[in-house]
Amino acid sequence: MKKPYAIGIDIGGTKISMVAGDARGRIFAAHEIPTRKGRQASRCVHAMAASLKSFVADPRLRHKICGVGIGIPGAVDTRRGMVPHSPNLKGWKGVPLRKILQSALRLPVILANDANAAAVGEKIFGQGKNISDFIYITVSTGIGGGIVVGGKLLDGVSYVAGEVGHMTLVPKGDRCKCGKLGCLEAYASGTAMAAYAKKHLSQKELQRIKKFSPGEPFAAKVLGRAARNGNRAAIQVYERGGFYLGIGIANLLNILNPQKVILGGGVFKSAPKQFWESMLASCKSNAWPEAFKAVQIVPSKLRGHVGNLGALALAFENQKTEVG
Amino acid sequence: MKKPYAIGIDIGGTKISMVAGDARGRIFAAHEIPTRKGRQASRCVHAMAASLKSFVADPRLRHKICGVGIGIPGAVDTRRGMVPHSPNLKGWKGVPLRKILQSALRLPVILANDANAAAVGEKIFGQGKNISDFIYITVSTGIGGGIVVGGKLLDGVSYVAGEVGHMTLVPKGDRCKCGKLGCLEAYASGTAMAAYAKKHLSQKELQRIKKFSPGEPFAAKVLGRAARNGNRAAIQVYERGGFYLGIGIANLLNILNPQKVILGGGVFKSAPKQFWESMLASCKSNAWPEAFKAVQIVPSKLRGHVGNLGALALAFENQKTEVG
Repeated sequence: MKKPYAIGIDIGGTKISMVAGDARGRIFAAHEIPTRKGRQASRCVHAMAASLKSFVADPRLRHKICGVGIGIPGAVDTRRGMVPHSPNLKGWKGVPLRKILQSALRLPVILANDANAAAVGEKIFGQGKNISDFIYITVSTGIGGGIVVGGKLLDGVSYVAGEVGHMTLVPKGDRCKCGKLGCLEAYASGTAMAAYAKKHLSQKELQRIKKFSPGEPFAAKVLGRAARNGNRAAIQVYERGGFYLGIGIANLLNILNPQKVILGGGVFKSAPKQFWESMLASCKSNAWPEAFKAVQIVPSKLRGHVGNLGALALAFENQKTEVG
Repeated sequence: MKKPYAIGIDIGGTKISMVAGDARGRIFAAHEIPTRKGRQASRCVHAMAASLKSFVADPRLRHKICGVGIGIPGAVDTRRGMVPHSPNLKGWKGVPLRKILQSALRLPVILANDANAAAVGEKIFGQGKNISDFIYITVSTGIGGGIVVGGKLLDGVSYVAGEVGHMTLVPKGDRCKCGKLGCLEAYASGTAMAAYAKKHLSQKELQRIKKFSPGEPFAAKVLGRAARNGNRAAIQVYERGGFYLGIGIANLLNILNPQKVILGGGVFKSAPKQFWESMLASCKSNAWPEAFKAVQIVPSKLRGHVGNLGALALAFENQKTEVG
C-alpha cells in the first residue's frame, strides 16, 4: 500500500532544510540545520539523520512515510547516492549520503540535482501538473534546469541532463564559473547580470543604481531594485540578460518542443518586467515558429518552497517507481 | 499477429523512393518516381499509391505488410498526416497524404520528418540498436536531427522536436535559410561551409580548390575533395564548421546527456578527417565533463539507405504502438 507522507531535504550552501509532508504539498514537520563543509561534512550528514529520526518517530507520521527525497546543488551521482563534486558543498565529495540516511531511517532515499528535483516538484505540486512534456528553468545566482519527457524526469545516462545553464550561447564568449566559455549562465544569471553592470556601466550610473539600496553591497538584488524603480541603465542590463535567456529557451524549444516552460528562481522576483518581455521577444525570434506557437512560458508559483517541495516530490515519484 | 513486412517511402526534393522490406532491413521490392511539385503534387501522391498497389499485390508480400512509413523533408503534421509547409516540397501543403494512401492501400500510414525517421531507422537497423537514449544528427545541405528518449522517438507537442540545426549558436549571427540568425545550420552544414569559403577565401585560393574538381561548379563536394587532398584553406573551412558542430553537439549533451550521438549525412562522406577531429575537440571543451565522458559519438553506418530504412522503421514502430 502506498504511504501518504514523505520527507524532503533541500541541501543548500548555507542551510539544510528538512520537511515531512503529504502528496498535496502540505507540511507537517520542518527542521533546519546549518550546512557544515570540509571535514565536518560527514558529521553534518549524521546530524541530519538524527534530526530526521524525530520526524520518523512523530506519532502522526510513524510508519506512514514512504521515503526520503534530497535535492542537492550541483552534480549528483543518483545511482550511488553520493555527491561527486559540488562547488557549493566542499568536503561532501564521496560522503555516502544515501547509505547513512537509509540505514539510520530504514527508508528508501533518492538524491537528485536541485533543479531536477524542482522540476519534479512542478510536476506534482505546480505548473507541471497534468503536463507530460515540460522544462523547468531556475534563474538565480546560476541557471539550472530539469526536463520532463513523457511524464518522467529525464536524468540522463550520467545524471547530468538538464544542465541548460551550461549550453554555449556565445562561442569563445565570457568565462562561466564552470570554467567553460560562453555559457547561458555567464550571460543571464543574476550574478552574471550584476557583474556585467559593474564592468560596463559608468561609475556615475552605478552610483545612481546604488542609491536605491542605501548601504547594501552591489549585487543582483540592488540592480533589480533600481530597475524596478525605472533606472534606465539597470533596465538595459536586464534586457540584455533577457535577450540571452530567450535564445537559450528558444534552443530548448527547437530541440524538445515541449508543452510548457516553467521559470523559477530568485531573479524573476527581483527583475523588472522588461526582463521577461525581452526574454519572450528573443525567444520568439529565435525559436522554430511551430515550437513557439505550441508552448506556454509561465512563471513558477512554488516560489521559496520549491526546494522542499521538489525534494518531497522526488520521494513520492521514487515510491511510484518502486511499487511499479 | 505481427506482420513481417512494411513499406518505407522516402520523399525527397527530386525523387520519391519506395521500398518493401522486413524488420532486419532486407529489401524485397523497390520503386522510384520523380517528385512533382506545385499543382502536380496531389497527382504525384496518386501516382505513389498506384505504384504501391503493386507492392501490396506481390504474392510474397500479400497480406503480410504491417503498414507504411513516410519520411518527409521539413515539418510534418504527424497527427493529421499532412505536409504543412516544406521548402523542398512546394505545392504539397494541405495534400492529405496519409488519407489518400490509407484508403488506396488499406494499411496504416505514418508520416514523420525525414531526420526523425532516420533516428528511428538507427534505432531498429543501425547504431541505436539496444540503446534507449541517443541523438541522430544529419549534416548535409542542412542539419536535422531526431532524439530518442527512453527508447521512443521524441516528436514533441507540435511534431518539431529535434530541430537541432536551428538552435542559435551565434546571437545575431549569420542568416540561416530558415530566416533566423545564427543557427547551427548556417555555420556547419555543407551549404554553409561552401558559402563561407566562397565569401572569405581569396580568388587564388578558390582557384586552387577548384583544380581538384575540373569542370564542376563550386559546392561542398568540391571543397571536400580539395580538403581531402590536403588543401590547407579548404581544411580550415571544415575545421571552422566542425568547431560550431561540436558546440551544437555539446549543447545537446548538456541538455539530454544521451548514451550516443550518431552522425550521418553527406558532409561526413566528403569532409576531411579534420572536420570530425575539430568537432570532437570543440564538443569536449564545451560539454559538461560528466556528459562528454558518458557519450559515444559515432558515425552512422546506414549511409545512403537511411532514408528508406528510416521510413521502414517508422512503419514497424507504428505497428508496435498500434498492437500495444
